[in-house]
Amino acid sequence: MSGVVYIVGAGPGDPELLTIKAARLLSEADVILYDRLAPPGALSYARRDARLVDVGKAPGGKGWTQDEINSEMARWAVAGMKVVRLKGGDPLVFGRGEEECSYLLARNIRCDIVPGVSSATGVPSCAGIPLASRWGSSTFAVATGRTAQGPPATGLGEIAGRVDTLVIMMPLSNLRNIADELTTAVGPDTPAALVRNGCTGSQSVIEATIYEIPSKAAGLSPPAILVVGAGAALRRRLAHPARAP
Amino acid sequence: MSGVVYIVGAGPGDPELLTIKAARLLSEADVILYDRLAPPGALSYARRDARLVDVGKAPGGKGWTQDEINSEMARWAVAGMKVVRLKGGDPLVFGRGEEECSYLLARNIRCDIVPGVSSATGVPSCAGIPLASRWGSSTFAVATGRTAQGPPATGLGEIAGRVDTLVIMMPLSNLRNIADELTTAVGPDTPAALVRNGCTGSQSVIEATIYEIPSKAAGLSPPAILVVGAGAALRRRLAHPARAP
Repeated sequence: MSGVVYIVGAGPGDPELLTIKAARLLSEADVILYDRLAPPGALSYARRDARLVDVGKAPGGKGWTQDEINSEMARWAVAGMKVVRLKGGDPLVFGRGEEECSYLLARNIRCDIVPGVSSATGVPSCAGIPLASRWGSSTFAVATGRTAQGPPATGLGEIAGRVDTLVIMMPLSNLRNIADELTTAVGPDTPAALVRNGCTGSQSVIEATIYEIPSKAAGLSPPAILVVGAGAALRRRLAHPARAP
Repeated sequence: MSGVVYIVGAGPGDPELLTIKAARLLSEADVILYDRLAPPGALSYARRDARLVDVGKAPGGKGWTQDEINSEMARWAVAGMKVVRLKGGDPLVFGRGEEECSYLLARNIRCDIVPGVSSATGVPSCAGIPLASRWGSSTFAVATGRTAQGPPATGLGEIAGRVDTLVIMMPLSNLRNIADELTTAVGPDTPAALVRNGCTGSQSVIEATIYEIPSKAAGLSPPAILVVGAGAALRRRLAHPARAP
């Protein structure tokens, strides 16, 4: 009797932003592998007798390697267990879900990807930032500010110059460089919004020009998402409806 | 006693991809306004005695104007009702949620945006297409192929040249022009995937080069999403793990 692994997106932070499918699979799972990117409250959907395995690591701290995580998922599935690998956001948007699923499929272990609310779109929405709107943002791009995830294929500045709104995941460790590049590419007065702890009770938003953002965000710790361009400007219109058309 | 309007994202198609929050609000709502972009199964979460108002229109057919929808939401909220305005995907990603919320806030009616799984990320994930992956897509952009939503601020070709993967919503009515522009910009052999009826039981995926896509998709009707570039190519690796590293 062969098991199965579900690579499940848990959304951007609020446990109520899990999908019904994610909650159901968590409630059915024998084994759940999670890390610090999955919303803590998500585990409340687990069975009382489910085995919860924390494979996460803090930045710089010790943790499981990707190989170890892969082996652990496979081990329980081969033993016939129903395994959930819980991810923040969506498994295929900076989530490495494809790597883990591929590993399992290559060993003839069934693997299903279950989409979640991606932090790339969900955090802006929680903060009232329209990424795509008839008000003035018809295109947006998503990139990561952290080189550990691989540097962007082309410069952020060049991308920002081609789309109305740019979303940068995990910008904090590289915020000065990002802001410098975007200031040069799209101008110092381009509106920006930095959303910290998005979609949680402690969500906060800093609105400023891209030039001002690094000084206004000094000392902040992750998680955060940076939105630059038209979408960031549109937030004000939603928050202050008197200015709306 | 004043009511409230929740602008709720219902996700890309599968009713199980609604968030727990969306299902809860639907189950509590006195009035639900929905259209053809909301997954039909989503209404199964509604109370039996809830008032269901179909404000949708088929393309070219008669339907409610945005002004009429706005008035209807306001009318029920002012009467003290709990109103859910149900949207496909995410309300702030091509969803006009910001317009509807702004209208309500300007009339001192409480309005909350509730994020959903955006079709822009959810449909690729349902189809096994990694939009952002260490395998080779670190940046992606999202645009719309339908001019009714406003033309892209810059050409799709220029955007495609700057990001690893480009997602085009609602591409079918303009597919030949889109493919021509992208063929010129990034080359005829650029991998593409057209996902039709994403995240539903009738989902289908056409994989081809961007040059071949229009002929292979001839005669298809919406809804569909087009993915062009690295992410489209990576699907094969996930589907055929023997090729994975």
